[in-house]
Amino acid sequence: MPADRRDLPRTASKPPLSGSLEPLQELVADDLKQVNAIILEKMQSPVALIPQLAGHIVAAGGKRLRPMLTLAAARLCGARAQREYALAACVEFIHTATLLHDDVVDDSHLRRGLETANAVWGNKASVLVGDFLFSRAFQLMVADGSLVVLKLLSDASVTIAEGEVHQLMTANDTATDEQAYLEVIEAKTAALFSAACEIGAVVAERPESDQLALRSFGLNFGNAFQLVDDILDYSAEQQALGKTIGDDFREGKITLPLVLAFARGSDEEKAFWRRCVEDLEQRDGDLEQAIALMQRHDALRDSKDRARRYAEQARRDLSVFPNNPAKHTLLQAIDFCVERLY
Amino acid sequence: MPADRRDLPRTASKPPLSGSLEPLQELVADDLKQVNAIILEKMQSPVALIPQLAGHIVAAGGKRLRPMLTLAAARLCGARAQREYALAACVEFIHTATLLHDDVVDDSHLRRGLETANAVWGNKASVLVGDFLFSRAFQLMVADGSLVVLKLLSDASVTIAEGEVHQLMTANDTATDEQAYLEVIEAKTAALFSAACEIGAVVAERPESDQLALRSFGLNFGNAFQLVDDILDYSAEQQALGKTIGDDFREGKITLPLVLAFARGSDEEKAFWRRCVEDLEQRDGDLEQAIALMQRHDALRDSKDRARRYAEQARRDLSVFPNNPAKHTLLQAIDFCVERLY
Repeated sequence: MPADRRDLPRTASKPPLSGSLEPLQELVADDLKQVNAIILEKMQSPVALIPQLAGHIVAAGGKRLRPMLTLAAARLCGARAQREYALAACVEFIHTATLLHDDVVDDSHLRRGLETANAVWGNKASVLVGDFLFSRAFQLMVADGSLVVLKLLSDASVTIAEGEVHQLMTANDTATDEQAYLEVIEAKTAALFSAACEIGAVVAERPESDQLALRSFGLNFGNAFQLVDDILDYSAEQQALGKTIGDDFREGKITLPLVLAFARGSDEEKAFWRRCVEDLEQRDGDLEQAIALMQRHDALRDSKDRARRYAEQARRDLSVFPNNPAKHTLLQAIDFCVERLY
Repeated sequence: MPADRRDLPRTASKPPLSGSLEPLQELVADDLKQVNAIILEKMQSPVALIPQLAGHIVAAGGKRLRPMLTLAAARLCGARAQREYALAACVEFIHTATLLHDDVVDDSHLRRGLETANAVWGNKASVLVGDFLFSRAFQLMVADGSLVVLKLLSDASVTIAEGEVHQLMTANDTATDEQAYLEVIEAKTAALFSAACEIGAVVAERPESDQLALRSFGLNFGNAFQLVDDILDYSAEQQALGKTIGDDFREGKITLPLVLAFARGSDEEKAFWRRCVEDLEQRDGDLEQAIALMQRHDALRDSKDRARRYAEQARRDLSVFPNNPAKHTLLQAIDFCVERLY
């Protein structure tokens, strides 16, 4: 804190927590109840398996980060239109559809400590219920009636699909470089964060400059979030918390820590990486060896630095907005997403 | 032909063929070239696998029946807006996305005599490129800018997904009745035919009565089309043409011929059906036995009659439109779809 600000009086509100999602969660708690009610209502179908399967993943305790961003962005822009509830539900439906398809693509059996939908009901049902949720999202957007929102989320959906296919192409390929990795995460993750935030400015009918600021904020926030997610998959702290680590390694998914460790590794180390992630020939102790190599080459630290740079940019994106509670919670959320251990 | 019309002079155009897709194909040939150009352009992506995989299925020689219906319906309504080209491409993209996901769900390896995309590139890529095409369809609709069209195709997409999940629930279940079967085909197939046709009235800015007539026409046409598709899977004529038959039987997919033969079968026959389609314990000669039982109980004939009744209703739906070349080709297309052998 600069010396000349040290003695400024604190505001009457709570002292700011450094890096927490809680202020955001508290700010939008009531709004999020409305969103959850819409999600619950709109995942219904006369075809019984649809609400069963969708309910499983919707109830599985995700953070609801994307719809919270839409709600907070709308508040940041002074919206009081309530349109944001249904649109936040659309964002979550699109996210949930991609999770269902991701778990099929990754052949995952656990998500957030629970069995995945494909593990319970099979890949077929997961693919088709994902299609249902995706279609339902567009149906809800049409009912809202904004072509601007429809453009944002159809563009984001195309970009997400491109990012997922691009990721599939880089899987098990140690020749993947940092740029390809960054393209993948921006497309598969950050594009939806970006649209989720921009919708806030759209429903508030703010000028284009605010839309652009929120678009950039969401993109930088999303990139930071995904980078940290990928770092945590090799994190000893995460393991200490009882979370599974090493999923990406076992699948041969190429993330930045691996890209950096591979690029900086000796020929012998490169052979190790190729055996593990290209040939998927993995033995006991390989994950520990991978983490040790990442630490030796500062791959985790430098990945985190990259995440921090995105986070700093996300903070700067918010500078055009006046100080208000929504802005405060978003700044805290950025810190949380970078410094979180889970 | 009524006696009093026997001596009317023939028109200068070709004599009408009874039951042919050719008049429709000729009518819209130039328009369809525009549609194909849009399909080719819009399936491009910087992610190389997307146009590769999409090109494989798009080029695999489908009939393009759904986009042709949009084009012919637009002509029937006197549209000359050219908006129908992009919208017909949307319809085909949605159809293609469902084919890609269907082939994953059915674990199919052949479609129209060619290897399926999932057989060549794997299930993962097929799921994700399906998502891409689906998203691209909505992006194209947004560019067109009609909320009416967006509503038609987002509603249809929800219905298709519901129909696909419903079909998954009836698979391998001989308790499936005729009503459940008819609900499945109306949702998974006829809903998109219906929307494809209704779009023709929308782009021509015709009154709602014409929209409703085309909606009903498409629904009845689609139901007839799918019924005949399901009958052909047990057809000796189809087999004589060198086509594979028995795919539905081998998967335990429940279609009307099977529903009727099961309901009319003896206890011993019911045990046969249960072994084959519930337990999927199939032996040499079972398919022939299944066809023989269907013939013994008139299950194929009665299914065909049901298709004919839908086709008659589709003809009646067109009665509100003036006689013009488009109407003529649609009537021929109905006959083709019911009487076709392939």
